[in-house]
Amino acid sequence: MAKINTHYQKLQAGYLFPEIGKRVRAYAAAHPAARIIRLGIGDVVLPLPAPIVDAIKTAADEMAHKETFRGYGPEQGYDFLLDAIAARYRSQGAQVAPDEIFVSDGAKCDTANMQEIFSLDSVVAVTDPVYPVYVDTNVMAGRTGPADSEGRYQRLVYLPTTAANGFDPPLPEDRVDLVYLCAPNNPTGAVMSRASLARWVAWAKQHEAIILFDAAYEAFVRDPSLPRSIFEIPGAREVALEFRSFSKTAGFTGTRCAFTVIPKELKARDDSGAWVALHGLWNRRHTTKFNGVSYPIQRAAAAVFSPEGAAGAQANIDYTMENARLIREGLGQAGYRVFGGVNAPYIWMQVPAGMTSWQYFDRLLHETNVVGTPGSGFGSCGEGYFRLSAFGFRENVEEAVERIRTKLPA
Amino acid sequence: MAKINTHYQKLQAGYLFPEIGKRVRAYAAAHPAARIIRLGIGDVVLPLPAPIVDAIKTAADEMAHKETFRGYGPEQGYDFLLDAIAARYRSQGAQVAPDEIFVSDGAKCDTANMQEIFSLDSVVAVTDPVYPVYVDTNVMAGRTGPADSEGRYQRLVYLPTTAANGFDPPLPEDRVDLVYLCAPNNPTGAVMSRASLARWVAWAKQHEAIILFDAAYEAFVRDPSLPRSIFEIPGAREVALEFRSFSKTAGFTGTRCAFTVIPKELKARDDSGAWVALHGLWNRRHTTKFNGVSYPIQRAAAAVFSPEGAAGAQANIDYTMENARLIREGLGQAGYRVFGGVNAPYIWMQVPAGMTSWQYFDRLLHETNVVGTPGSGFGSCGEGYFRLSAFGFRENVEEAVERIRTKLPA
Repeated sequence: MAKINTHYQKLQAGYLFPEIGKRVRAYAAAHPAARIIRLGIGDVVLPLPAPIVDAIKTAADEMAHKETFRGYGPEQGYDFLLDAIAARYRSQGAQVAPDEIFVSDGAKCDTANMQEIFSLDSVVAVTDPVYPVYVDTNVMAGRTGPADSEGRYQRLVYLPTTAANGFDPPLPEDRVDLVYLCAPNNPTGAVMSRASLARWVAWAKQHEAIILFDAAYEAFVRDPSLPRSIFEIPGAREVALEFRSFSKTAGFTGTRCAFTVIPKELKARDDSGAWVALHGLWNRRHTTKFNGVSYPIQRAAAAVFSPEGAAGAQANIDYTMENARLIREGLGQAGYRVFGGVNAPYIWMQVPAGMTSWQYFDRLLHETNVVGTPGSGFGSCGEGYFRLSAFGFRENVEEAVERIRTKLPA
Repeated sequence: MAKINTHYQKLQAGYLFPEIGKRVRAYAAAHPAARIIRLGIGDVVLPLPAPIVDAIKTAADEMAHKETFRGYGPEQGYDFLLDAIAARYRSQGAQVAPDEIFVSDGAKCDTANMQEIFSLDSVVAVTDPVYPVYVDTNVMAGRTGPADSEGRYQRLVYLPTTAANGFDPPLPEDRVDLVYLCAPNNPTGAVMSRASLARWVAWAKQHEAIILFDAAYEAFVRDPSLPRSIFEIPGAREVALEFRSFSKTAGFTGTRCAFTVIPKELKARDDSGAWVALHGLWNRRHTTKFNGVSYPIQRAAAAVFSPEGAAGAQANIDYTMENARLIREGLGQAGYRVFGGVNAPYIWMQVPAGMTSWQYFDRLLHETNVVGTPGSGFGSCGEGYFRLSAFGFRENVEEAVERIRTKLPA
């Protein structure tokens, strides 16, 4: 008799973004004339730069001829892409070897799948608020108990990151084996300083814990004193792995490419207490369950590192960060307390006193036709906050800010 | 203290194909003049048909303009592809709704990931020989004990498929909750008949078991009396899900696209004994851990179903099946006992008496410079067999057959 994985039954309501989609669709159906501006889900809108599109087309043409056709490639990615990624790390002051890089079709997948190589007994910590994928995938795997009335899962350790601590994740007080850190942060837009990351690396070393570092938004860091990779921190190669993505950095949300770095020095214990290199475990997982990224898409990703491709991607990032400035300053002028948006494409704002995040979501939708993301969707410490994304066309961002300023000031 | 998933330590030697690669590289290094012909790993060599390449390029151009740019798409796949797949099923006499289809980047991934939605207590059955991914992913998840000296994992149920039973998987005698069936079969090239599949469907219904049906090679079925989908069998929608792929059917091993069908009627029990629809569970898994297939690649996949794309793909299949005929008949004339290769791109041959599969692999490599796959790499019942793949250029296939006939007859 087949039985389901009953851990799925612990999962709360459903993924945040489908719920937002449902409410927006219902409003749009009832108000067909409304011009809705979406600054909710963090999706890019700017077209791919021409050198990246050309790379796809050239690779597609190669597939049309038997001399240049490509079948299965290395599951980890082609050398031309691994080498380009390693060079990018070198330019950022971090040492990463090409064979420590695993190319994939998305950082969502990698952050979701990485927990598989760790014991089910692991105690996992996440920040609160947090990108829901880290949480949900550990619930599905069975590393948590059921959720309480606030939606917090038993056994999972929550590290509050709020205005009170400057959105800097506090070190855990009790046992933690694995911790997910994300900087620049989704959803708060905060970036961990070098000193903060160094503190985490020292903590991990002391407790033989592993840091799963999500750097999907590293390209948005503008302040040169802030780290873009955890591998800029001495000792991090022994305690951390890092996720990166082309999704937001180069507009690949519909094109799909990302990668994860697992340093050779990174180890965890087996049942006998012996150290085991995580690189080999992940390599086994990756080669057994994945067959590599589409060849034309890997060529597109490599083109992001060409001088012309990089210039195009940077122009799009600059455009987005100008949006972020407009939102941040405009909402500030409208009386809101705003965070983020300086080294990250997300603005994290406090909702007016006495309102929940979802109440504010509904008022914003109904009174200004602007869609954002309720902070409580990212965790109970996100209650009272709201996320706006800077991905969008300039005219829409300007109009959204103007609508909020005039129709729904703080 | 971080601990690893120690189930990984039960895994045997390493994936089959890396071992083959190692031996071939060593031989090639020692014999640089040897002209090695690879009929080992089942990788395609023929270029993509022009309409499919054009679809990629047109979609890439769409990504270059803000009016047609695509960011995140539906994780399950775009309607244009889901509708085309559903139409293909209808033309084959199977009812599948578009929203029962989940597009992914590979059937390897889907067959690897599907076990996640089932209880870790599930008793899993596989045929022997078998595609190693089904086995390894259940070992990694912890559904088996350690392997014995023959490489068989405790708790896993092995169903021998050999010449003695016509390579038709026998029904299990003891409790089995989940069974992986693959037809046309990798590696044996056998195709399950309608009667055989109907027997399995009846068994699954009786035992409340689930059939994970791998139809990655359905396009190679030429005999119209043989089923291409398990959903051609009455009642299958209540007990089976089906994996399909563009990899071999349309030359997508490097382009990457596949899909899985989960009928709405398909259910398994939870701890309370209540029925739970697997469609919803897999949808939660798919949307939480996956972000959809690259848009240009989905356009390429849809082009496989256009009249021009289908004609191109069919021409490649016909070419491959002519290779299969040449191998099958040539080796038969050389005294080998051969199976498969009529409705499948794999030829499964018996190695000469007194030799193991790996011994034959080495002799074939050294004496004829032809690379195949040792049957024992697919399971202990594959010992004494050898797999040749019909994917390859005609002249190479012809020369490989000639070399075997003259230098290493049975």
